[in-house]
Amino acid sequence: MTIDLSGWSCPLPLRDEPNIMLGHGGGGKMSAELVEHLFLPAFDNAALRSLGDGAVVAGASRLSISTDSFVVHPRFFPGGDIGELAVNGTVNDVAMCGAVPRYIAVAFILEEGLPMQELGVIVDSMARAAKAAGVALVTGDTKVVDRGHGDGIFITTTGVGVLGDDVEIGPDRARPGDAVLVSGTIGDHGMAIMSVREGLDFESTIKSDTAPLNHMIATLLEAGVEVHTLRDPTRGGLAATLTEIAVASGVGVLIDERSVPIDRVVQSACEMLGMDPFHVANEGKLVAFVAAEDAERALAVMRGFEIGTRAAIIGEVVAGHPGMVVAKTAIGSTRVIDTQIGEQLPRIC
Amino acid sequence: MTIDLSGWSCPLPLRDEPNIMLGHGGGGKMSAELVEHLFLPAFDNAALRSLGDGAVVAGASRLSISTDSFVVHPRFFPGGDIGELAVNGTVNDVAMCGAVPRYIAVAFILEEGLPMQELGVIVDSMARAAKAAGVALVTGDTKVVDRGHGDGIFITTTGVGVLGDDVEIGPDRARPGDAVLVSGTIGDHGMAIMSVREGLDFESTIKSDTAPLNHMIATLLEAGVEVHTLRDPTRGGLAATLTEIAVASGVGVLIDERSVPIDRVVQSACEMLGMDPFHVANEGKLVAFVAAEDAERALAVMRGFEIGTRAAIIGEVVAGHPGMVVAKTAIGSTRVIDTQIGEQLPRIC
Repeated sequence: MTIDLSGWSCPLPLRDEPNIMLGHGGGGKMSAELVEHLFLPAFDNAALRSLGDGAVVAGASRLSISTDSFVVHPRFFPGGDIGELAVNGTVNDVAMCGAVPRYIAVAFILEEGLPMQELGVIVDSMARAAKAAGVALVTGDTKVVDRGHGDGIFITTTGVGVLGDDVEIGPDRARPGDAVLVSGTIGDHGMAIMSVREGLDFESTIKSDTAPLNHMIATLLEAGVEVHTLRDPTRGGLAATLTEIAVASGVGVLIDERSVPIDRVVQSACEMLGMDPFHVANEGKLVAFVAAEDAERALAVMRGFEIGTRAAIIGEVVAGHPGMVVAKTAIGSTRVIDTQIGEQLPRIC
Repeated sequence: MTIDLSGWSCPLPLRDEPNIMLGHGGGGKMSAELVEHLFLPAFDNAALRSLGDGAVVAGASRLSISTDSFVVHPRFFPGGDIGELAVNGTVNDVAMCGAVPRYIAVAFILEEGLPMQELGVIVDSMARAAKAAGVALVTGDTKVVDRGHGDGIFITTTGVGVLGDDVEIGPDRARPGDAVLVSGTIGDHGMAIMSVREGLDFESTIKSDTAPLNHMIATLLEAGVEVHTLRDPTRGGLAATLTEIAVASGVGVLIDERSVPIDRVVQSACEMLGMDPFHVANEGKLVAFVAAEDAERALAVMRGFEIGTRAAIIGEVVAGHPGMVVAKTAIGSTRVIDTQIGEQLPRIC
């Protein structure tokens, strides 16, 4: 894959150093220049401009807080990059309890020698993602580690959202009878990373699905859909997410395998590599458990979004086999969908 | 320095793997075991137990948010370790606007092969620091990178605090006439790291000053001290902190060099290494700019804390030389205290 870095030009005061140096993390003038000429213009907002040790922002009576480190390798991949992923991933985690994401804090761990150009492109990408999600990047930190003790760039994002007083959504709230929906095809992100990392060519490029899901969630709630549980099936894929919910709610989940949307190229890539798409990570999909009578309405809301055109009702919650996820297969038999022991694909997010 | 790891014993379900493996960051069963048997017992609280993607917590009308990555090398040093530092550092940054720190989110980036024992000791240390500071560790994330692409452990902590409606403290609020105080000796943390990293022996061990400062700040405010500006002089030391405040407030700062408290061993270590203690990092000290008439009261409050026994009034704010920090030296001359260009001591926090 060719990375196009041409869209970014280094601000004049940073041009003397084409690569990140230890001093950029030292809290001195080089750090200040990076903040002033790179981060501030990209993420501009009032809270960030005050440059205190912490940002002061407006609050609410209930908050949702989530944090994630992003160590994805490679840092540029079809459909996105580590920066976009770091914003979307945290926006999504904050939103999964029904909260509206508002603020993002970002902490960079840079390796000495990282090209300034790549950092610039990643920062631009984060700024665009924050704008698309409607969140303000209000505070941050930059550390630089010596060459050989990091891997270019690691990004930790922490999100804070505000939660309406009447919203009660959680992994322990699924109830027998609930319909289970997924907002689109599964496995895209993991297979995109896998294919670029391993240099595999398929008939067409598999792209990461990285996207913010907060607008879809807000619309589901505005439409009056009785939502019990929301999760984004990232590491561990759909299998881990459904199992976690089954365990947390003490219910069984019954999936109709044929109804789970999977992109044809992703499917054949999985088959070629002996992987189960149910275990492959997604970065722009949500799983929703909703009251059965609201299932069709929820589906219509999802399909109204460009990222939700392939949304589907994939199963239901049952009282039997609590803590377990069972799938009806294409040939009419059933199989237990289990969680992986370790890591199928390391460093996919 | 000998690291004493004997106080921690690995929980039974984790004993099969004496070292961190990639699977501990994979979102599968190994990840779940680490959370269930290590993180949950250490950090136990209701918000964390719910194990959603984000934590749901009570809010307030104004919030303070701060984030910091900790990459300190070595990860155990005299007076503390990376875990304690990661909690105290973020607690302090949240508190510097006068907010009360309440919640901490923690994200670990572990390198494959990190001894489980070391992670255990660090986690215990974080739990104790959180308890001492009065903050709850409500959500977290763990990533594992392949051997050679990290450095044992990096920790990113993000803090959220609640800010009273009538509190107005910021780096741009210093006014001519204000008294400038520091809560204790400067340079201890940076020189502690330096001495252990370089294997230097001084007449006694220099210990890091890592400590939470939020209780001292709360007591200053309760005592009715008119506080204008608070900062903890970490990277870049007292020099960078005073300069930032002088620039942000558009005032001059005049320091009496003889009044700045410096530990005798730290002073001689700095002299031996040709370093200026004004540029060396602190991790448990604050600089306060207060109304002149409240200076003695502020000093009494600081000295009432064990970490503040050597607090001192070190100077004043002047209308002249805006944006500049000037020190009167011991021999009666003056010198400009400037910020470093790059990094004096890499990876001290």
